[in-house]
Amino acid sequence: MKKSLILIFLLSASILKSQTKEDSLFIRKIYDQALTGSRCYEVLEHLCTQIPSRLSGSHGAALAVEYMNTVMKDEKFSRVFLQEVMVPHWERGSICRVKSIQKGVASRSMVACALGGSVGGKAKAEVVEVQQFDELDRLGEAGIKGKIVFFSRPMEPRHIHTFEAYGGCVDQRWAGPSKAAKYGAVATLVRSVSLKEDEFPHTGAMGYDSLYPKIPALAISTSDATWLSKSLKKHPELMIDLECNSRLLPDTLSHNVVGEMRGSTQPNEYIICGGHLDAWDNGQGAHDDGAGCVQSIEALRILQQLGYTPKHTLRAVLFMNEENGLRGGKRYAALADSLKENHLIAIETDRGGFTPRGFAIDSEDPKKVAEVAAYKSLLEPYGLHDFAKGGGGSDISPLKKLGTLCIGYVPDSQRYFDVHHAASDTFDKVNKRELELGAASMAALIYLLDQYSH
Amino acid sequence: MKKSLILIFLLSASILKSQTKEDSLFIRKIYDQALTGSRCYEVLEHLCTQIPSRLSGSHGAALAVEYMNTVMKDEKFSRVFLQEVMVPHWERGSICRVKSIQKGVASRSMVACALGGSVGGKAKAEVVEVQQFDELDRLGEAGIKGKIVFFSRPMEPRHIHTFEAYGGCVDQRWAGPSKAAKYGAVATLVRSVSLKEDEFPHTGAMGYDSLYPKIPALAISTSDATWLSKSLKKHPELMIDLECNSRLLPDTLSHNVVGEMRGSTQPNEYIICGGHLDAWDNGQGAHDDGAGCVQSIEALRILQQLGYTPKHTLRAVLFMNEENGLRGGKRYAALADSLKENHLIAIETDRGGFTPRGFAIDSEDPKKVAEVAAYKSLLEPYGLHDFAKGGGGSDISPLKKLGTLCIGYVPDSQRYFDVHHAASDTFDKVNKRELELGAASMAALIYLLDQYSH
Repeated sequence: MKKSLILIFLLSASILKSQTKEDSLFIRKIYDQALTGSRCYEVLEHLCTQIPSRLSGSHGAALAVEYMNTVMKDEKFSRVFLQEVMVPHWERGSICRVKSIQKGVASRSMVACALGGSVGGKAKAEVVEVQQFDELDRLGEAGIKGKIVFFSRPMEPRHIHTFEAYGGCVDQRWAGPSKAAKYGAVATLVRSVSLKEDEFPHTGAMGYDSLYPKIPALAISTSDATWLSKSLKKHPELMIDLECNSRLLPDTLSHNVVGEMRGSTQPNEYIICGGHLDAWDNGQGAHDDGAGCVQSIEALRILQQLGYTPKHTLRAVLFMNEENGLRGGKRYAALADSLKENHLIAIETDRGGFTPRGFAIDSEDPKKVAEVAAYKSLLEPYGLHDFAKGGGGSDISPLKKLGTLCIGYVPDSQRYFDVHHAASDTFDKVNKRELELGAASMAALIYLLDQYSH
Repeated sequence: MKKSLILIFLLSASILKSQTKEDSLFIRKIYDQALTGSRCYEVLEHLCTQIPSRLSGSHGAALAVEYMNTVMKDEKFSRVFLQEVMVPHWERGSICRVKSIQKGVASRSMVACALGGSVGGKAKAEVVEVQQFDELDRLGEAGIKGKIVFFSRPMEPRHIHTFEAYGGCVDQRWAGPSKAAKYGAVATLVRSVSLKEDEFPHTGAMGYDSLYPKIPALAISTSDATWLSKSLKKHPELMIDLECNSRLLPDTLSHNVVGEMRGSTQPNEYIICGGHLDAWDNGQGAHDDGAGCVQSIEALRILQQLGYTPKHTLRAVLFMNEENGLRGGKRYAALADSLKENHLIAIETDRGGFTPRGFAIDSEDPKKVAEVAAYKSLLEPYGLHDFAKGGGGSDISPLKKLGTLCIGYVPDSQRYFDVHHAASDTFDKVNKRELELGAASMAALIYLLDQYSH
C-alpha cells in the first residue's frame, strides 16, 4: 500500500513535471511569435494616427468600431460580432480658455481643458485654493460663494506604484465640482492628475451630484497649477477669467467589438481578455487604451497562429465607453448573464502598453489569488514577478457579480500618468517590444488558464 | 549548554529581525528622498542639452569634466578630485555620405555614420552582403577583393533581455572591417545594431587588426539596411558610393571625476559606484551614459542628505573613455592598486536610466552571488527582482584583477537599443521617475553593502 502510494506520487510528480516543461516550451513559443510575427504595433499605429479621437458617441468612435471589426475579421477568428450599446455623447466644444487677471500684472493664459461631463459656461471671479474637501466645509458659503474653487492637491510621488498616487488624487477631479457648487462656487479648476510637471492639461471624467448646480469644471496643466498656487500666496486677490462650451448631447448607439475562438470541449465556458476602444478626444488614446485593444486581439491571434485549440471559448472584447459611463462593460455583462454564458475569467489590459510586471488578481479569496500566482514561476523568465491581489479593471468589473474571476494585466507604471488623458498620449510613446511583450504575457496566462481552469 | 545555544540563536534571530526592519525603514527613506528631493534629472538636463557631444579628447568632454566636477563640489562631499588620464582622440569629421548607384534607377542616399575609430576614405564598388564571418572565408579574395562588404545580421528579437541580442550582433561592428579587409574589401557597411527599424544610424567602437589595411567602416540605419538587403536580392550589381573623413588625432589629456564620502571606521576600504562621462558625439549621451553619471552622484547625495555616516569610503566615479578605449577604467584601477586602496565592491550603471529590475553580480563564486542576492527581499518592494550572475560593467572590469566584487545595475532593457549610440539618445527619452528610482536602487544597495560587507 505504502509502495503504491509512493509510486502514484512519483508518477504524478513526473506528469506534473512534464506538463510544466510542455507549458514552459509553449510559453516560449508564444513570446517568440509575439516578438517576431505580431501585428499589434501596426494596428495601433493606424488606430492612433488615423482615428485618434474616439470619445463615446463621436464619429471617431464609430470609425474605430468599424476598423477594429475589420481587423478581427481579417484574423478569421471563429466569430466576430458587435454588441449594441447606448452611450453618453459629451462634446468638449471649441472653446476652453483660462486666464489670470491681476492689477498691474500681465495676465497669464493657462493651458486648460474641460473635464469630461462638464457643462459649458463662463466665470470671472476670485480664486479659493483647497487641497482637501473638508477645507470647503470649513470655508462654507462665506468663503466660497461666487468664487472659483481651485483643487491643487498634487499626486504623491513617494508611491512606487503610480496608480496608488492616482487613487489618492482623482477624487478632486471626479467629485470636486459638486462639492464646491454646494457652497456656491461658480466654477472649478483642478491641477492635472499627473506626476509630470509640464504644459499638458489632463482631462478625465467628472460627475455632478444632482443636489447642486452644475458648474464648469476644468483642468489646468501641472505647471500652470504650480504657478497659480505660488501666485495666490503672493496675490490672494488674483482673479480667473474662464470659459468653455462643452455640452451633453442625447445618448447615441455604439458598439462593443468581440472576437471569439470557440472552445473545443467547454464552449459555453468563457475566458476573455479586453481593453476599451473609446478614448479621450484630446490625444490619440495610445496607451489609454489603444494598447489594451490591440494587445487583446494579439493575445488571441498568437494562440491561433500557433495552431492552439482552446478548451474554453476565448474572446477579445473591445469595450465601448470605459472613460465616461462604463456602458459597454455593463452591457457585456448583462448579455453574458441573459445568454447564460458562463464567464470563468476576464483579464483586462488598461494600464498602458509598457513593459510587463505581472497580474493583479481581483479576489477576496486567498485561494483564488494563490491559484493564479502559482503560474508565477512559468512567467518570471519574461519579467512578470507581481502576482498579488489587486484591481482587475473597470470594463470587466460588472462581470464580478456573475462570479467571474477578474484579473488585471500589470505593466510598469512609471510613465503612465505622464500621458494619461492628455494630448501627449500618442503612438510614438509606445515601444513596440513593450507592447508585444504585454500581448504575449496575456496570451501566456490565457493559455495556462485555459489548460487548467474548470 | 543546549539552552544557552537556543538563547543565542533566538537573540541573533531577533537582532537580525530588528536589523532587517531598520534596513527596510532606511531603504524607504532612500526612495522617498530620491522621489521628492533629487537633483539628478536637472543635472542630466544640463549635461545633455548644454554639453551633448562628449567624445573622449573633445572640447565637450573637457567641459563635461569641468561641469560634473562643479556639480560634485556643490554637494560638499568629503573630497572631490580629478584623475588624469590620456585618452584617444578620434574625430568623426564633417563628411559621411553613402548612396546607391544602379543603372536606370534613382540613387538612394542612406543615413550613415562612421564607426568610432574608422579611418576616412572613399569607395565606389559593388556590394557583398554577409551575415556571418565564415561567409567571408568561403567567398575569399575572388568574391571580396575591390568590393564593399555589407554586414547585415539583425539583432535577434526573441531575446527577452536585449543585451543578449546586442551580444549576438556587435562582432560585425567591432571586428567586421578587418575581417573584410583581409580579403581585399575597400570599405564596410554594417546594419545599425538596434532592434528598432528607423532612420537613425547607430555608431559604436570598431577596432582594426594591424595585419590588414585600414578601410572605412560605416553604419547605416536599420531601414536603409533592410532596403539594401532587399535591393541586392533583386539587383546584385547594385553599387555603393561612399565617403567619410574621420581621423585619429594624438592622445589627449582628460580626466576621471571622483566624489568621495570618507568612511568612518574602514576608510581604506572602498565601495564605489560609477558610470562613464564620455559619450558618442552624434546624440546627447542621455541614456548612455549621462544617466549613469547623474545616478552615481545622486546615490551618494541621497545618503548624505539622509545624514548617513558610511563605515567604508564611498565613491561616485565618472569614468572617461568607456566608449573607445576604456582608458579611464584602466587608469582608475591602476591608481587604486598603486595607492593600495582596498576596493571591496564596485557597482556600474551603464544600461540606461530605465525602470529598475535588479543587479547583475559579476562573480564565478556562487557564494558571492548569494551574498548579494540575499538583499533581494528588501529590494523587491521597489521592483528589483533580478539578482543573478552577470556582467558588472566595462569601466569597473579592470578592478576585478584586484579582487573587487563587480556588480551591474540592471534596469529594464527593452528601450535601450532603440537609442543606443544614435542621435536619438536625447534627454527627452529619460523619464524622471525611472531615473530617480535607479539612483535610489543604487543607494539602497550601497547602504546594505556598507552595513554588512567586511
